[in-house]
Amino acid sequence: MSVHQLTIQTPGKGLFQITSEIETLVREADLQEGLCTIMIRHTSASLTIQENADPRAKRDLEAWLERLVPEGDAIYTHTAEGPDDMPAHIKAILTATSLSIPVESSRLTLGTWQGIYVWEHRRQSSLRKLVVHFCD
Amino acid sequence: MSVHQLTIQTPGKGLFQITSEIETLVREADLQEGLCTIMIRHTSASLTIQENADPRAKRDLEAWLERLVPEGDAIYTHTAEGPDDMPAHIKAILTATSLSIPVESSRLTLGTWQGIYVWEHRRQSSLRKLVVHFCD
Amino acid sequence: MSVHQLTIQTPGKGLFQITSEIETLVREADLQEGLCTIMIRHTSASLTIQENADPRAKRDLEAWLERLVPEGDAIYTHTAEGPDDMPAHIKAILTATSLSIPVESSRLTLGTWQGIYVWEHRRQSSLRKLVVHFCD
Repeated sequence: MSVHQLTIQTPGKGLFQITSEIETLVREADLQEGLCTIMIRHTSASLTIQENADPRAKRDLEAWLERLVPEGDAIYTHTAEGPDDMPAHIKAILTATSLSIPVESSRLTLGTWQGIYVWEHRRQSSLRKLVVHFCD
Repeated sequence: MSVHQLTIQTPGKGLFQITSEIETLVREADLQEGLCTIMIRHTSASLTIQENADPRAKRDLEAWLERLVPEGDAIYTHTAEGPDDMPAHIKAILTATSLSIPVESSRLTLGTWQGIYVWEHRRQSSLRKLVVHFCD
Repeated sequence: MSVHQLTIQTPGKGLFQITSEIETLVREADLQEGLCTIMIRHTSASLTIQENADPRAKRDLEAWLERLVPEGDAIYTHTAEGPDDMPAHIKAILTATSLSIPVESSRLTLGTWQGIYVWEHRRQSSLRKLVVHFCD
């Protein structure tokens, strides 16, 4: 069992793949078989597992969620941290804060088309902290 | 490893923070390092990790989800348990039924602004049962 | 600790219960107390825990999500894999790719009304691969 810290710099809103960073941690931890759990320590960025092939799929996910949860909605009263902050919290509750992926033969058991992503919901570049736990 | 039961009384619709209850279980279990998994045993209440500071953020999350999934939608056919029941199930699938949080130095590794919440989607006061699992 | 593979054939769009398949794996693994984690290895099908009693609840969940994320939305640019593919990815990010359920007395600690479902978001019949991890 072990707990690891991972920091990802995001350049602003969007999906940023971290599969290779997590695979590296699995190899370094020398985990043959077990469970990898990832948690993001923020409420305005989140996690998702999604299509890693066609960049248009990623673009459509971003555009669809932005339209569902736009900036400037008159329903928001929590506006002191900027127009992108309250939509960021809503986008986070609709996606994932923690994900668990079994490990076999020292590899994440992701499907062929699955990638792990940090979804940054704020406009600005941010350092996002993740915690990764391995158990066997 | 251990499994614990936790019961939370909710007063009706809304987000109710349970971070301190979970932290107490971590201390009582004497877990130094490991993984804490929380599952809610209901389909009309759910879990989320969200902003624990400005109460307006909580209020906006509640108002936004209520508007997305209102009572009285003509699409509902499962109406025998009351007008708030089918929207409750939909809100539950959009948020989380289980959450996993790594533990380090006997503390949940939540970020500064993160709190763990039970999200009650029914109007009435309810006793909500959670199961908490610790592994190292 | 053990990792298991499970394949589910889905007949097309809809919620398909897999609770008994997972319970069977728990019994076969002879897990008395621990944690069961399920991950689906796809980006156009997902997992959810929901009401297992009234079939109208299931039908309403399907109809509501289909209306929120319809085929043929002009926002989609990832259309090469068919009109049901991009909505499938969006539905997957709004629901779950992994779920964790504590086990006690060799049984999943699901609530009375909870069932585990694979949510198929594509029109065609598909073989969906899941990975199930047990730890104690």
